[in-house]
Amino acid sequence: MHKINKSSKLTIFGKKPIVEVIHSQPSMVNHIFISDSAQQDSNLQEIRELAHKHKIPMSNFSEKKVTDLVGKDAHHQGVVAELKYFPYTEFPDWLSSLDLEKNPAVMILDEVQDPHNVGAIIRTAAAAGMAAVLLPEHRQAPVTGTVFKTSAGAIMHIPVIRVGNVNQAIELLKKSKFWIYGITGEGTTSLFDYVHDSPVAFVVGSEGTGIRHLTLEKCDHTISIPMNHQVESLNASVSAALVAYEWKRKSDI
Amino acid sequence: MHKINKSSKLTIFGKKPIVEVIHSQPSMVNHIFISDSAQQDSNLQEIRELAHKHKIPMSNFSEKKVTDLVGKDAHHQGVVAELKYFPYTEFPDWLSSLDLEKNPAVMILDEVQDPHNVGAIIRTAAAAGMAAVLLPEHRQAPVTGTVFKTSAGAIMHIPVIRVGNVNQAIELLKKSKFWIYGITGEGTTSLFDYVHDSPVAFVVGSEGTGIRHLTLEKCDHTISIPMNHQVESLNASVSAALVAYEWKRKSDI
Repeated sequence: MHKINKSSKLTIFGKKPIVEVIHSQPSMVNHIFISDSAQQDSNLQEIRELAHKHKIPMSNFSEKKVTDLVGKDAHHQGVVAELKYFPYTEFPDWLSSLDLEKNPAVMILDEVQDPHNVGAIIRTAAAAGMAAVLLPEHRQAPVTGTVFKTSAGAIMHIPVIRVGNVNQAIELLKKSKFWIYGITGEGTTSLFDYVHDSPVAFVVGSEGTGIRHLTLEKCDHTISIPMNHQVESLNASVSAALVAYEWKRKSDI
Repeated sequence: MHKINKSSKLTIFGKKPIVEVIHSQPSMVNHIFISDSAQQDSNLQEIRELAHKHKIPMSNFSEKKVTDLVGKDAHHQGVVAELKYFPYTEFPDWLSSLDLEKNPAVMILDEVQDPHNVGAIIRTAAAAGMAAVLLPEHRQAPVTGTVFKTSAGAIMHIPVIRVGNVNQAIELLKKSKFWIYGITGEGTTSLFDYVHDSPVAFVVGSEGTGIRHLTLEKCDHTISIPMNHQVESLNASVSAALVAYEWKRKSDI
């Protein structure tokens, strides 16, 4: 286990993410709330049994109260959990414990604002077998209930690291022999031509304006995704997924 | 131009999708509404000029009234447009006009419920240069303002076809020498091993339960995406994107 930095309390929702948290770190869960209308829902039986097994307090709440906990846009499926914290992995500890011989890869999010994109990128990075996702502390969606939900709980299977400053983090990665690739429409290497034989970090920029100028300057290479000329760009989580799986393809060979 | 089936009226929102519609089919636009707070927004200058050029009526609305038009979850950026219709491409006309020598590809959505996924898949299919996206009429998110927004307007650059019955559409595609590939966790061909030299249709199933049994039986092949064992599945739009770009990679060679 890596050293962690605990976030403040966090409310998550939906069956799958809650099951994943209890399976992997039951001590993180403070309390589980199940809505009245979901009392008889057999889909929640697994959560009830897990909560019982791990002695996690459970309460029945009205539909309205459950919705109030997470907001009306949250597709909570009748179940909400309060977490004591989210365990962000500590960057220096993680970096010093990496096996660089295995050419690990990380995804760096640079001001990705949409929590759905953040959750989807974390899910794909975990599925592709990447070593971590780095989130800067400023102007970047942190880990929230929506990030948990969109990651479908996969966030419990990959270190998520909070860094104060992306450019400093890039410098530290470079000292550990990482090559830094920016994903950008103006990239000089086509996705299909990407090759690697070193540890590598991919930088994903914000949905609107892409990677910031100073960060782009720190990149050793840039990757672009070939596109039909009428389409200007792809969704940030789609671009990140294509790059993550290009890395996986070339790592598996 | 293909024959089209016009949908009923449709309200779309956000700068990029509205610009794309006016550029490609200005006669589709009934009216444009700009919120009071966006009156001075220089980002909307392009829309004002386009509307003026194409004689599209424009009104100033209060922030509240604009939000009422599209719902408070819609990130409307101060601009909303009422479309007279969405031009679904007619299936038989499209099919008969295809150049099958070019080995075209289509994406078939089978009960994909989340409009964000539908929009992202349409955007990626357009970027990858696919020939169409097929949407069944039932239990499948139709084209809405959210689909337009998530596609970032790319929906104007690829035929979108509404079909009454997915399985019948698959039969017709097969008669035109299409091979049908289902994308599923239990697929027998790995994404990385996929090869093709024929017209091809990819079927994407619903977020929760995947491709329906009867539809899966109609598939000639199934494709799975290799994943770290701890992660069970990927977001539907991510899976579709990986397959679309695998097709593009092998088409470009």
